[in-house]
Amino acid sequence: MSHIHPIDVILHKRDGHALSDEEIHAFIRAIVDRTPEKHLVTDAQITSFLMAVFLRGLDARELATLTSAMRYSGDTFDAAPLDTFTIDKHSTGGVGDKTSLLIAPILAAAGLAHPTDAGVPGICVPMISGRSLGHTGGTLDKLETIPGFNTQLDLKQLAETLRGSGAALIGQTPRIVPADRILYALRDHTGTVESPFLITASIMSKKLAESLNALVLDVKVGSGAFMPSYEKSKYLAELMVQTGEASGTRTVALLTGMDEPLGRFSGTWVEVWECVDILRGKRHPMSKDLIELSNILSGWMLYLAGRTSTPEAGAQLADQILQSGDAYKAWLKIVEAQGGDTSVFEDPASHHKPNATLVLKAEHAGYLSSMDCKQAGWAVQRLGAGRAKPGDPVSVHAGIESHVKLGDRIEAGQPLFTLFSEDDALLAEPERMLQETVRIEPAAPIAQPIVREIVASATTFTATRSNLAGVSDALVS
Amino acid sequence: MSHIHPIDVILHKRDGHALSDEEIHAFIRAIVDRTPEKHLVTDAQITSFLMAVFLRGLDARELATLTSAMRYSGDTFDAAPLDTFTIDKHSTGGVGDKTSLLIAPILAAAGLAHPTDAGVPGICVPMISGRSLGHTGGTLDKLETIPGFNTQLDLKQLAETLRGSGAALIGQTPRIVPADRILYALRDHTGTVESPFLITASIMSKKLAESLNALVLDVKVGSGAFMPSYEKSKYLAELMVQTGEASGTRTVALLTGMDEPLGRFSGTWVEVWECVDILRGKRHPMSKDLIELSNILSGWMLYLAGRTSTPEAGAQLADQILQSGDAYKAWLKIVEAQGGDTSVFEDPASHHKPNATLVLKAEHAGYLSSMDCKQAGWAVQRLGAGRAKPGDPVSVHAGIESHVKLGDRIEAGQPLFTLFSEDDALLAEPERMLQETVRIEPAAPIAQPIVREIVASATTFTATRSNLAGVSDALVS
Repeated sequence: MSHIHPIDVILHKRDGHALSDEEIHAFIRAIVDRTPEKHLVTDAQITSFLMAVFLRGLDARELATLTSAMRYSGDTFDAAPLDTFTIDKHSTGGVGDKTSLLIAPILAAAGLAHPTDAGVPGICVPMISGRSLGHTGGTLDKLETIPGFNTQLDLKQLAETLRGSGAALIGQTPRIVPADRILYALRDHTGTVESPFLITASIMSKKLAESLNALVLDVKVGSGAFMPSYEKSKYLAELMVQTGEASGTRTVALLTGMDEPLGRFSGTWVEVWECVDILRGKRHPMSKDLIELSNILSGWMLYLAGRTSTPEAGAQLADQILQSGDAYKAWLKIVEAQGGDTSVFEDPASHHKPNATLVLKAEHAGYLSSMDCKQAGWAVQRLGAGRAKPGDPVSVHAGIESHVKLGDRIEAGQPLFTLFSEDDALLAEPERMLQETVRIEPAAPIAQPIVREIVASATTFTATRSNLAGVSDALVS
Repeated sequence: MSHIHPIDVILHKRDGHALSDEEIHAFIRAIVDRTPEKHLVTDAQITSFLMAVFLRGLDARELATLTSAMRYSGDTFDAAPLDTFTIDKHSTGGVGDKTSLLIAPILAAAGLAHPTDAGVPGICVPMISGRSLGHTGGTLDKLETIPGFNTQLDLKQLAETLRGSGAALIGQTPRIVPADRILYALRDHTGTVESPFLITASIMSKKLAESLNALVLDVKVGSGAFMPSYEKSKYLAELMVQTGEASGTRTVALLTGMDEPLGRFSGTWVEVWECVDILRGKRHPMSKDLIELSNILSGWMLYLAGRTSTPEAGAQLADQILQSGDAYKAWLKIVEAQGGDTSVFEDPASHHKPNATLVLKAEHAGYLSSMDCKQAGWAVQRLGAGRAKPGDPVSVHAGIESHVKLGDRIEAGQPLFTLFSEDDALLAEPERMLQETVRIEPAAPIAQPIVREIVASATTFTATRSNLAGVSDALVS
């Protein structure tokens, strides 16, 4: 740690001072470089630092530096040799949120249609995703229900896959942002998880390690969001945009509603099934919100990649790519490149084989007015489709199907959800949880747009301001 | 940890809530009960809790409960069978602060003169002391320069010694307040030392484990004090008094000046020598401040023990006990009971055998206007009389002798300090440190009383208010 001692870094932050760039870099370096022989910094010291940051906060420079120090704490993806526009989307986590499985092929199709002079797709999406945890689902768990699909590519394989497919959906490697893995393992059991500063540094260090030209963030708000209030979600979005922009990555955050499970299915294979249906042109009424959000997010990405002059035009282009079948072709290419068996997409419903099924019906008539979406997410987890703690196994066939959406008129006895599980015994508690959380009222609730607000830098807004009104009635902040 | 999880305790404090008594007790219990097999709470979790307490603070009830939970985390001294008045004094640490070696025999003499019906001294002083650390000296290191003196008594031996001598000067046992040992080992390197709440809980849990009827606290202020400002020293004093009173121990804190080394000598054996001189009626001019402070503190103790109607009368009684030789008799009894060879007291100067001596002289004439007393304490440590870290050895013959006091008129070339060490090579740096810190100015500084302010409960003040003006011009808060 050269001439900077961990204790001094802790004391400075504890006493409310801004840390110097040197202090932040030295502290993160000590975390990564320590070994059983080299006692550079103890777990207790790291935790002390984390709690001091939690309670004292970080200014914009400190946050950008912490994020950068973490980003460069291990290997980073070098996109330069591809000479393409690299872009990704990140969601703060939701229930039934499977937009990645639609966005990656939409963007890949757009990139494949316009290759660079070197023959590389003009847009590449090096999407490093996570696993389900708690009430939220994880893209990797969903993808791994496709027989043979390999999410464990290294950075060299990632580059190769992007050259061919324009998108790759892979897991975190141990060598990318090792500082985050160490910090997160401590944060999890020391009460330092819910800091917007630490969350920003964690998310953005991993995303920026993908060497992105642009990043679209889907920050959830509402009862199923990780952050406990709209204001806190917005603050997190602002910190992430500010941190991304500071690193030279054009960054936009959309605050989107997570008040009910997104789309038709929430689970693992069932979510792949829903996406395959959409990619093949089959639009179930329950998938409407998913398609809308996926198009809006894709639209922003296409706009930032220079393919359209506005995000709204981008959303229209995304829907055309979906409807034309080009996205499905790109999807097949991605899955094949990662070793997946695409034959399961011919009849995805036939691969959904839960041992136990239960239909939850409405007890009385009225309008579906609200639910605690987090509770619905936990019900999905308890059915077997999620994990309470890292490392737990996840079921292929567990999940729920939504038969109604908020605002729908419901008759008594009408099906609300179908619950799927591998085991009869796992149905009772999720049934009770869903029953308890669903509110059916005499009057219809006020409908809300899926995009509530957009957070972006002034430059981004200036470029597109005149057209923003068209984006799903979104407010502009 | 029954149904309370450490993480929830951390989260509650982190988010600014008051912890319940159950939460505090469960957390401290988990700290003490954990073993390599029983993972009740991790170091990282304890540190996270400590930093949250550091930055969020504790209210009076939480602090009293934390102190109590720590106090009862191991063995406590049971004073009830003695049926005596148990009282102690605690100092927050100073340079040349040897009042314990005078106060213990003064109080013991007062107790021996008035035994209880059971023949036990009417006042007992179960003084559990510490070792020198950093710039401050430690009573145990001084006592252990007396050949044979055993500071490692267990609680049973402590009770026996008190029955015979009325006072005992012993070290912390591993079984008293084990929670503090665990917490302190973590606080030391995680930036959570300087919290008035954690300092109060640490000091008061150990003092209250002595089952005291009353406690007098000597909280240092000035350049040699542990706390960095007068206000912070006073706040610490208030927290300690409030916490002592909440536990049923009558507690008074005196804020006393530590702007220069107290008395004639600062070191180890030299401090015993100075006290023996005083106990034997030999009053060196340089010992004046020491005798005054010792009498004032003893006076408060005698007052609280009901021996005098005011602290001022207590101070007068203390001086009588000193001058009568009764305190010296009590001292011999204490030292003999703990195995010490009292023959060294016949000619204490002859037992001072430093290998290296150096006299630091004034470079120019003027008035001794100020010094950084902490720096003087570090000079004593560097000479070999203190330790930079726990476990370091301490020299018997190292130390300094003060030849002048703040406000004294000084001629050029007049001796300021004599430095003693076991090793010539250890003299240079302390000499430089002392030289740098001493300020000799043309004008005399404003003289300050040794007691700056007194912090006590309303009850204590009401009982003695009319006479407080006489106590060393002390302010009353």
